[in-house]
Amino acid sequence: MLRLAYIIMNLKELSKVLKLSISTVSKALNDSSEISAATKKKVVAKAKALNYHANPFASNLRSQKSKTIAVIIPAIANNFFSLAINGAESYAQGKDYHVLIYQTHEELQKEIAICKHLYNGRVDGIMVSLTRQTNDTAHFLDLKKKGIPLVFFDRVAEKIDAPKITTDDYESAFIGMQHLLKTGCKKIAFLSISDTLSISNKRHDGFIDALKKHKIKPEKNLMLACDNDENANKKKIKKLLTQKNKPDAIFACVEELAIASYEICEELKIKIPQDVKIISYSNLQTASILNPALTTITQPAYEIGRKAASILFRLINKKEPNLSEENTVLKSTLIVRKSTGEKK
Amino acid sequence: MLRLAYIIMNLKELSKVLKLSISTVSKALNDSSEISAATKKKVVAKAKALNYHANPFASNLRSQKSKTIAVIIPAIANNFFSLAINGAESYAQGKDYHVLIYQTHEELQKEIAICKHLYNGRVDGIMVSLTRQTNDTAHFLDLKKKGIPLVFFDRVAEKIDAPKITTDDYESAFIGMQHLLKTGCKKIAFLSISDTLSISNKRHDGFIDALKKHKIKPEKNLMLACDNDENANKKKIKKLLTQKNKPDAIFACVEELAIASYEICEELKIKIPQDVKIISYSNLQTASILNPALTTITQPAYEIGRKAASILFRLINKKEPNLSEENTVLKSTLIVRKSTGEKK
Repeated sequence: MLRLAYIIMNLKELSKVLKLSISTVSKALNDSSEISAATKKKVVAKAKALNYHANPFASNLRSQKSKTIAVIIPAIANNFFSLAINGAESYAQGKDYHVLIYQTHEELQKEIAICKHLYNGRVDGIMVSLTRQTNDTAHFLDLKKKGIPLVFFDRVAEKIDAPKITTDDYESAFIGMQHLLKTGCKKIAFLSISDTLSISNKRHDGFIDALKKHKIKPEKNLMLACDNDENANKKKIKKLLTQKNKPDAIFACVEELAIASYEICEELKIKIPQDVKIISYSNLQTASILNPALTTITQPAYEIGRKAASILFRLINKKEPNLSEENTVLKSTLIVRKSTGEKK
Repeated sequence: MLRLAYIIMNLKELSKVLKLSISTVSKALNDSSEISAATKKKVVAKAKALNYHANPFASNLRSQKSKTIAVIIPAIANNFFSLAINGAESYAQGKDYHVLIYQTHEELQKEIAICKHLYNGRVDGIMVSLTRQTNDTAHFLDLKKKGIPLVFFDRVAEKIDAPKITTDDYESAFIGMQHLLKTGCKKIAFLSISDTLSISNKRHDGFIDALKKHKIKPEKNLMLACDNDENANKKKIKKLLTQKNKPDAIFACVEELAIASYEICEELKIKIPQDVKIISYSNLQTASILNPALTTITQPAYEIGRKAASILFRLINKKEPNLSEENTVLKSTLIVRKSTGEKK
């Protein structure tokens, strides 16, 4: 209670020193059109001189703006998401907003808990990339109903009527596969992170269609569904690489599965690319100095984050009420390196 | 104004439905000892049934607790900091707190701006790791004066009287150097990120003392001071590796300088470890699958973050007022790999 009294006193004291009403001082500090420019100037100068700082809770209560957006992501220890956050942050800073980062650690229950926590208006808008477990998106409907602006990026909720910023998952997977198939691969394994996520499904479709185009039948025991358990994933990859029907290439949907594949190859003395080629969706900074350098499908992560933030701010400012149908697709780039046996 | 009215009406409405005063309902929802268990049960059940949610700004104003801590770091796209945040988050979640992440992008001006933003009590406590530019820490004194709990980790402000969680920078640098010197290196380059940061200075001292112990004179043109400009850093490393007085080993203070060194070696066809050995402070997930695998001094990043958060919460709860002198040092580990020519 002491602290509360202290902060409120500050506004009172400031008003006393200025010989103005609290309401006038407050309006002047908030740049209200009801107050003259001369009074505003006087108030702001005195506030500065006396080192007055507004109580954020009190001023948030008045304006009902938190000046904060939330970004809900699976993990920050992931190059795609850290770059996407930097993109979102660069946009938010220009609007004098702060970015609150929430990690779900790929757990649906954490995603639901975070949504509940944000349900009461703690932030002005939310950017989300789903967990790999998210097979039900009802918790986002509750946020929508409350009128909290919502934008999905990368891992989007198909059923929720909100703007979605993605990369060309189907096309980029198809292009990556074309590259592998041209080098002569016939038995390509698909390492997926989820059977519910939109990105997994679209990349899967691109993978299958490329095989079909080359008249190759997809083989069930080359399709690997991975989950949150790193050790279990490694066991699955180990089994894949030692089974009778060995793959001659691995197509990894996310970089953590490519890293795990490298580690298993090292352990089993399987040579990349001689014994097995590897390609992966990845924004890994060290891709070019891996042993061997990793061929990647690289998403425009920074741009995706920035674009998602820019659309979120249009929703926050309610300039365009019909944004919910807006979907933006940014292109990924194939970067060929040694792990698929072509370039250096 | 509509939204404000709406939220306040909810509490009013809830009270009406319950036929209780707003004050009683509020106290019941906040588990006050003034209210009977039976009334609390009734209120909570009705609040749940009617989907009542407290307005966070109003309740924060009452309690003066934001239930949020801030972590100010140079960058999230860095394995040390992302692991440290996960450690802090794991502790904060146990206390039902949220973690607000602020990136300075290694710029002192951003660090100052963030401190000003937090000056008015938006968070209950702050964990900080300084930018490489921070040569003046007066902005933290202002936070201290306001009574906002403050803990430094890894890159600490020596002059500020606040708890500091670090690793054994001097000792671990000395141990890393002993390893290099035992493999026969005589011309070891030191790649530093700052000439003001505590971690840089202590690692520098460990480096110098190890040389002295082996009766080797430090050479000025093997000491490289790097900064925020990635391209300029690469140019400096390129010059270092092509100058007359070539190093036979590189000791990198941070992983980004080791990555840059790998890239330059690749470009100049300099073989690691045959032509130059490399060791680096690093929490890089891909260290073991680099070409060649990187010898690292690995900090207990997760534990540092968790420990810093635990001390911050002791300050927030004011259980121990004399914590300001508490400094905790957690040990780093030398992991020898191919880049220094010894193990696989």
